[in-house]
Amino acid sequence: MANSKYEYVKSFEQPDVLLPNTWIVVRIDGRGFHKLSDRYGFIKPNDRRALDLMNAAAVEVMKELPDLCIAYGVSDEYSFVFHPSCQLFERRSAKLVTTIVSTFTAHYIYQWGTYFPSTPLQPPYLPSFDGRAVLYPTTRILRDYMSWRQVDCHINNLYNTTFWTMVQQGGMSNTDAERELQGTVSSDKNEILFKRFGINYNNEDEIFKKGSVVYRQYQLEDPKLESKSKHGDDDEAPVDESKTSKSQQDKLRKLRRKAQVVVDHVDIIKDEFWERRPWILSGKPGKLPEA
Amino acid sequence: MANSKYEYVKSFEQPDVLLPNTWIVVRIDGRGFHKLSDRYGFIKPNDRRALDLMNAAAVEVMKELPDLCIAYGVSDEYSFVFHPSCQLFERRSAKLVTTIVSTFTAHYIYQWGTYFPSTPLQPPYLPSFDGRAVLYPTTRILRDYMSWRQVDCHINNLYNTTFWTMVQQGGMSNTDAERELQGTVSSDKNEILFKRFGINYNNEDEIFKKGSVVYRQYQLEDPKLESKSKHGDDDEAPVDESKTSKSQQDKLRKLRRKAQVVVDHVDIIKDEFWERRPWILSGKPGKLPEA
Amino acid sequence: MANSKYEYVKSFEQPDVLLPNTWIVVRIDGRGFHKLSDRYGFIKPNDRRALDLMNAAAVEVMKELPDLCIAYGVSDEYSFVFHPSCQLFERRSAKLVTTIVSTFTAHYIYQWGTYFPSTPLQPPYLPSFDGRAVLYPTTRILRDYMSWRQVDCHINNLYNTTFWTMVQQGGMSNTDAERELQGTVSSDKNEILFKRFGINYNNEDEIFKKGSVVYRQYQLEDPKLESKSKHGDDDEAPVDESKTSKSQQDKLRKLRRKAQVVVDHVDIIKDEFWERRPWILSGKPGKLPEA
Amino acid sequence: MANSKYEYVKSFEQPDVLLPNTWIVVRIDGRGFHKLSDRYGFIKPNDRRALDLMNAAAVEVMKELPDLCIAYGVSDEYSFVFHPSCQLFERRSAKLVTTIVSTFTAHYIYQWGTYFPSTPLQPPYLPSFDGRAVLYPTTRILRDYMSWRQVDCHINNLYNTTFWTMVQQGGMSNTDAERELQGTVSSDKNEILFKRFGINYNNEDEIFKKGSVVYRQYQLEDPKLESKSKHGDDDEAPVDESKTSKSQQDKLRKLRRKAQVVVDHVDIIKDEFWERRPWILSGKPGKLPEA
Repeated sequence: MANSKYEYVKSFEQPDVLLPNTWIVVRIDGRGFHKLSDRYGFIKPNDRRALDLMNAAAVEVMKELPDLCIAYGVSDEYSFVFHPSCQLFERRSAKLVTTIVSTFTAHYIYQWGTYFPSTPLQPPYLPSFDGRAVLYPTTRILRDYMSWRQVDCHINNLYNTTFWTMVQQGGMSNTDAERELQGTVSSDKNEILFKRFGINYNNEDEIFKKGSVVYRQYQLEDPKLESKSKHGDDDEAPVDESKTSKSQQDKLRKLRRKAQVVVDHVDIIKDEFWERRPWILSGKPGKLPEA
Repeated sequence: MANSKYEYVKSFEQPDVLLPNTWIVVRIDGRGFHKLSDRYGFIKPNDRRALDLMNAAAVEVMKELPDLCIAYGVSDEYSFVFHPSCQLFERRSAKLVTTIVSTFTAHYIYQWGTYFPSTPLQPPYLPSFDGRAVLYPTTRILRDYMSWRQVDCHINNLYNTTFWTMVQQGGMSNTDAERELQGTVSSDKNEILFKRFGINYNNEDEIFKKGSVVYRQYQLEDPKLESKSKHGDDDEAPVDESKTSKSQQDKLRKLRRKAQVVVDHVDIIKDEFWERRPWILSGKPGKLPEA
Repeated sequence: MANSKYEYVKSFEQPDVLLPNTWIVVRIDGRGFHKLSDRYGFIKPNDRRALDLMNAAAVEVMKELPDLCIAYGVSDEYSFVFHPSCQLFERRSAKLVTTIVSTFTAHYIYQWGTYFPSTPLQPPYLPSFDGRAVLYPTTRILRDYMSWRQVDCHINNLYNTTFWTMVQQGGMSNTDAERELQGTVSSDKNEILFKRFGINYNNEDEIFKKGSVVYRQYQLEDPKLESKSKHGDDDEAPVDESKTSKSQQDKLRKLRRKAQVVVDHVDIIKDEFWERRPWILSGKPGKLPEA
Repeated sequence: MANSKYEYVKSFEQPDVLLPNTWIVVRIDGRGFHKLSDRYGFIKPNDRRALDLMNAAAVEVMKELPDLCIAYGVSDEYSFVFHPSCQLFERRSAKLVTTIVSTFTAHYIYQWGTYFPSTPLQPPYLPSFDGRAVLYPTTRILRDYMSWRQVDCHINNLYNTTFWTMVQQGGMSNTDAERELQGTVSSDKNEILFKRFGINYNNEDEIFKKGSVVYRQYQLEDPKLESKSKHGDDDEAPVDESKTSKSQQDKLRKLRRKAQVVVDHVDIIKDEFWERRPWILSGKPGKLPEA
């Protein structure tokens, strides 16, 4: 029995190759995590276990896909970044996005018990994630995207910290706290925290204030030496690398697998982070740290 | 600190809404399952535990998304079908695909221990799945797609059954078995099985020969009454339903949640399956079976 | 000097193949025709010369592209319809749309002098058109699209006829006429025309009331015989034809070239037009009229 | 009569907005110009009248669309370039492409008689053009695209010049000339021209060797001053300008309309052309030449 009679249906599959030489960001988000965080008793405003579990899953995704150059996570979302020169899966959008979403989900579910030992998963209410790919044509815009997420982390965390302190320590109702915070700016919230509750927001955990940055660790470079060549990368490097052969790409992947994947809670808006870790934006592996 | 400075990056997100009034098939595939089936000692040519786990995960996806009207699974792949009238997630492709992939993965990982009690998962080698959406503009073509997958199931299973019987029972090397089977047609393989090993392929398990069909169960209809109205669905029903209000859609979802999701191993190429279960192609819930 | 150094730029070209087996409508619109109609003194509310020129250009497009099965024009817009089985230019969207736009423009400019002998074109203010392709998955929806355009023609023409009669024959200012017509329904406008100006709208030219339908003429069929098989076309015919070989397609094109392209001003909302001309929706040439 | 019953068909129109902040190249090509050049007796290998007509049409397109920053033409093709900051028609692909194709076609047909006074157009065989949009994410790649076209111009022109000289002056058959040229490199062709026919290829017309570059003329800048800031444009300028308001964009358009559109036949592969005309890549109008 041949299958040729029905095989014409394959012609309905349409290509979804992403524009070459552009940054690819795959952002995933927890599905219905508001409800889910209630069900599993996540601590407000930040549950360290939940964030550590997100980071553990993200680290596994980074290890599984050496083509990824950096990831940034906050709350129940994570952004994974492929370099413009990335050729993985011929840059097919659905393949890239679903591979990340599925790998992340698998590790999140598998490691749940490690981070929530006394709160078993309750099927059918399992955590899951959706995701999508977005293209950014230049390094400047990619960095603005990363800054956008980190500023968002700060804004949300300051709000949530203040709100939940007013509720939990101040005994206010959710509605009252919400109403009082409406229209306030950062300095207002800092003042509420400090004056009423003696809390200095600056002393809050960095993971809450900055989110989590995941990348491969090489020897840090001296920012001064680096700074003069920081521009022009867009125009030169990606093109060269997009022409790299399959075997060269495999070699690069092997090199990247040797690097340790680390989780950091640092500023990624200013230049310093990027200048000291030029391998992230260049797409070229750095020097492994000496033992 | 306002975020407006960076918010322009949102303008790079591009819409991916699927053409209205067309069938949406989301097909997911196990990533690297050839290697994975070796690692976890899947039985050749078919591991009933692995298929049951696939089906269990698919059932949960069907329950989670009442907009799905049918799913078909074979080996490490599963096709999930949304009706042309589906408005879920405004028909955004990435959202539909990643939701299915992630929900499926979550349940697959979570239920692994139930189906493989003595073979624990070995991180980082966790099962994962990729996926994509394909559009089919008419019911005829959707049915041809389903037929394509089931014919493929048959072709592969007959080959694999013969191959592994030659190797496992006949003591042949993989290479020798492969060489002998090259160029053979179905009747040749049936004969090898029967004459050499006394195996009647027709007696093999239906789940292996037919794959697995997952759908909501209502009262079966008399095919004769149904047959005369089987055409014209494409032209009428979807349009009507695409205009259904949000509240009507929610009502439909509730109705669908009441139906039992069943797993069947039957022919879906001939008309009978579809004529007796008109709710699958019409997108309108049937009558719940009486208690 | 080889060109290989730069040829990588070709990899940035992305495919734009339209989903198979769906109706393709290419709608083109005059660019800035409001201003242009003032510049060239088009008669209000309808300039027969301008419409005839549009139709003449559309007929040439239909002759040039035998794959087109019907076209419908009103005012400065024209919709050209490709059958679901169309394989022209591998269904590449930009190629289909620009070919129609350019061919239409060429004939419009070339024949301008024939229809406006005393109003020469004044460069750089030349007429031009933009266009786009839209997919319709079923015959029902394609017909609804055609009905939408013809109803639009009727609504606009009744409004414009009433408005310009009030201004031109009634001596009202544009603003006053506009104000009076605001919120009126069809019967109100009919009454204004009849009571104040003795004009029976039904007696207006069909080309103004119905727009222009362009198609290949074959022997009309008896609607009664046809009616019972009018459904099901979507499911059967297109698939068969999408599998037709290149040579069969060429043969079909030759047959279609033999048919006369006619311009009609008739109702295309009711079934009769389509039932008597089954070749339009079936995509299969009819019988040539006997001499 | 309301139109609401059919208006749902509008929901089938899908967005085609091009990725922000990337170069847009719309390349148009003559349809069937090989045959057409025979029909209208174009001179081989280059017909100056045909090229001048192409250039005249391109100049009108540039004038009509001040958002275009440069265009390059060779043979029957023309590439029109929009700056990454371009917001015209909300960057809708079909709208941008069809507007250029239609405007170009209109002027080509209208001015035909000026360039071919003794060769009137023979309907229905009118010249027409197809077109498509391609995105280039960085200035480096855009320049490589332009270089690609100009190198292609050179390669084809050297071949055609040699081939037609061998046929026209050398009395060879097309087949013989083709056979002899197979596998030859540039120097071989130069030698054939020089040794056999006394033709120094360098002395051929620049328009044939270099193609035609069309742009707005401002005061040339000193390349040395410019060179140090030539990098980094990608990262900075486009983003700033994509945020420019509608009124600022209109102002820029007015400024650009004041500049003269010129046709040049010069090298655009080396840096000099671009360094002396920084307004082309910056997207910011230069200084108008003093009177």
